[in-house]
Amino acid sequence: MARLESVDAEQWRHWGEGCLRALDFNQDDARCLASSLAQTSLWGIDSHGIARLPHYLNRVVHGSILARPDIRIEQSGPASAQAHGGRGHGIVVAHRANEAAMALAREAGVGAVGVSDSSHCGAIGLYTRAAARQGLIGMAFTHSDAIAAPFGGWLPYFGTNPVSFAFPRQGGEPLCLDMATTSIPWNRVMNARRDGAELPAGVALDGEGLGVTDAAHARALTPLGGEYGHKGYGLAMMVELLCGPLNGNPHGPHIGPMYEQLDRPRELGAFFIVIDPARFAGGAALAAVAAGMAAELAAQPGSPRMPGDPELASQAQRQVTGIPVPSALKAEMAEWSGRLGLPLPPFAPLDVQA
Amino acid sequence: MARLESVDAEQWRHWGEGCLRALDFNQDDARCLASSLAQTSLWGIDSHGIARLPHYLNRVVHGSILARPDIRIEQSGPASAQAHGGRGHGIVVAHRANEAAMALAREAGVGAVGVSDSSHCGAIGLYTRAAARQGLIGMAFTHSDAIAAPFGGWLPYFGTNPVSFAFPRQGGEPLCLDMATTSIPWNRVMNARRDGAELPAGVALDGEGLGVTDAAHARALTPLGGEYGHKGYGLAMMVELLCGPLNGNPHGPHIGPMYEQLDRPRELGAFFIVIDPARFAGGAALAAVAAGMAAELAAQPGSPRMPGDPELASQAQRQVTGIPVPSALKAEMAEWSGRLGLPLPPFAPLDVQA
Repeated sequence: MARLESVDAEQWRHWGEGCLRALDFNQDDARCLASSLAQTSLWGIDSHGIARLPHYLNRVVHGSILARPDIRIEQSGPASAQAHGGRGHGIVVAHRANEAAMALAREAGVGAVGVSDSSHCGAIGLYTRAAARQGLIGMAFTHSDAIAAPFGGWLPYFGTNPVSFAFPRQGGEPLCLDMATTSIPWNRVMNARRDGAELPAGVALDGEGLGVTDAAHARALTPLGGEYGHKGYGLAMMVELLCGPLNGNPHGPHIGPMYEQLDRPRELGAFFIVIDPARFAGGAALAAVAAGMAAELAAQPGSPRMPGDPELASQAQRQVTGIPVPSALKAEMAEWSGRLGLPLPPFAPLDVQA
Repeated sequence: MARLESVDAEQWRHWGEGCLRALDFNQDDARCLASSLAQTSLWGIDSHGIARLPHYLNRVVHGSILARPDIRIEQSGPASAQAHGGRGHGIVVAHRANEAAMALAREAGVGAVGVSDSSHCGAIGLYTRAAARQGLIGMAFTHSDAIAAPFGGWLPYFGTNPVSFAFPRQGGEPLCLDMATTSIPWNRVMNARRDGAELPAGVALDGEGLGVTDAAHARALTPLGGEYGHKGYGLAMMVELLCGPLNGNPHGPHIGPMYEQLDRPRELGAFFIVIDPARFAGGAALAAVAAGMAAELAAQPGSPRMPGDPELASQAQRQVTGIPVPSALKAEMAEWSGRLGLPLPPFAPLDVQA
C-alpha cells in the first residue's frame, strides 16, 4: 500500500478557480474550467483532470493561452457555426461552442459547430454529457499532436483523437461513450514509466516499429483494433479532418507539442454535433428506451460493462474519498499557491493500491 | 487454384435491374439498387454486393420488402428530417434519405436524416462517398439484428453496427472509412464454415462465451478492440441508439432476423449526417489538405494503408476481371433467371487463390 493524499473536489475547485482568477481569468471562465477539471477527476479520468491545471497555468504565463480571449461564434448557416477560439483555453472555448451547437439543434433539429485557434479541450465527454443532460444527443471530436502511428507504419502521425457520443437516459446519468481511437492513452505510458510497470502487448511501438511492453522504449501508440487497427486508424483520420483541416487548423505532425514550446499557441480544433431527438420518430421515447436497453444489457450473463460505468463508479467513490493527489502534483500545487499567494486546499490521507 | 467464374459489373447490373423490374420495382429504384450492389462488389465488399440480390428478391416475393413503397421524407426542422421507409428496400430508402441530408446541409450547413421502417441498407460507404463526391462530408450509421456480444458478455445483442465517414479529396476518390464495430463481419464466419478455415483468435465466442477459432462453434462476434473491446461495444451501442430507438425502430435482439421469418418486415433504421464544409473556416481548402494528408501518410515508412485503399484496389482489378461469382451464387442467379424469364448475363472463367 502506498501512502497517497486526496483533495475534496469542491475544495480543489475553489483553489483552481482562485489560481485562474489570479491569472486574470474572469469569474465565469475560471469557474467553468476549474469545475470541468474537478468533474473529470471525479470520473476517474486522471489524465484530463486536476493534474492538468499546473500545465495550463504555465501556458497562460507563457502567453500561448489567453486568460481573456476574444471568443467569437460566427453563425454560418441555420444549423452551423464556426467558433473562433481566440487562443483561449480549450475547455472554455469548447463549452461555448458546444452550447452554440445545442442552441442550433433546438432551432434547426441539428447543430454543428467547428472550433479553430483553441487549445487542449480536456475530456470531451464533458460536452456530450452536457447536451444529453438537456435531453439532446451530443457528439464531440477533438485532435492533438502526433503520438499514434498509422496502421502499418510506426512514426507518430495522429493524436489519440477521441470521439464521444451521449444520449439521455431516463432516471439516470446519460449513456456516454468517450474513447480515444488508440488502445490506450499516452498517459498510461507515462504512468508505466514512472511506476516501472510493463505495458500490455500490442499497444505501443518503439522507434523502429517493433512492439514494446517496456514503456521506456515506447515511441508511438498503435491504433485501436490490434490486427484490425485499420479501423482505429481510419477513425483517427476522420476525427483529424473534422477538427483540423475543416476548421483551418493544422493537422497531425504539424500541430505544436503539448508540453514543449510553451509560448507557441496550440491552434487546436474540435467539432460538436448536437441532435434534437424531438425531431425524429422515436424521440419522445428515446430516454426511456435507452434506460430499458441499459437495464437489459446489465442483466445479460457476464454483467457487461456499459460505456460510462467506470466513470460513474469512480465518481461515487471519489465524492466520498476525495480525488487522489500524487506527491508530484501536490508539489506543483504548492508551487503555484506560493507564486499566486493562495492557500492550498486541505489534503487528507488516502490508502490506495500501489 | 480453384476454378471460379466472374461477371462483368455492367452486365450484372443490367441483369439485376431486370429482375427487380420483373418484380415491379420502378426503373429508377431498380437501377439505384442494382447499381449499388454492383458498385459494392467492385469495391470487393462481397458480403454486401451482388450476392445479396437473391435474398432481397426473396423478401420482395414474401412481401416483407415492398417493390413500390410509399417513402416519405418529412422535414422536421430547418436541418432535420425523418425518412419513413414504407417497408421499402433499405438501399433505395437510404439513398433517398442521404440525398435529403445533402440538400439540408446545403441549405442549413448540416443536415440530419433518420430512417424508420426500412430494411437492410447495404454498404453504408455508398452514401458517405456520394456526399463526398459532391464536395460534402458524409456520415452514415446503421444497425442490424443481434450478432455481436456486449463486452464482458457472450450472448449476441447488437448487430455489427457500422459507421462510415467520407471527406472529399482533391484529384482523387473520397477519403472514406466504412467499418463494422466488430473485428470481423459475420460473413467471414460463414465463409470460414464453408471453406473449413480457422477464424483468427479473439474475434468470436461460442455459446458458453469461450473464444473459438472453429467457425462451426461461433455464436457471437466480439466487439472491435480485443482487450479494449469496451470501445467497439460502446460504438455499437451509440450507433444502435441513433438508428433504432431515435427513429422509433426496434433495437438489438428485438430486430427480426435477416435470413429467417422472410415475411416479417425488418423495421430497420439508419442515420445520415451531412456537413457542408463551406460553412467552416477551412472548408475551401479541405479537399486539397485531405489530398496532402493522404500523400504524406502514403509516404510514411511502413506504407500505411489508407481507409478506402482496399476498395479502390479491388475496383481497379474487378473492372478488368469482372466480379467473382461463387458457384452457389451462380445457381441462385440461374434459378431467378428461370423464374423471372430473364437470360443470365455471360460468365467468364476466373483463376483465383483457393
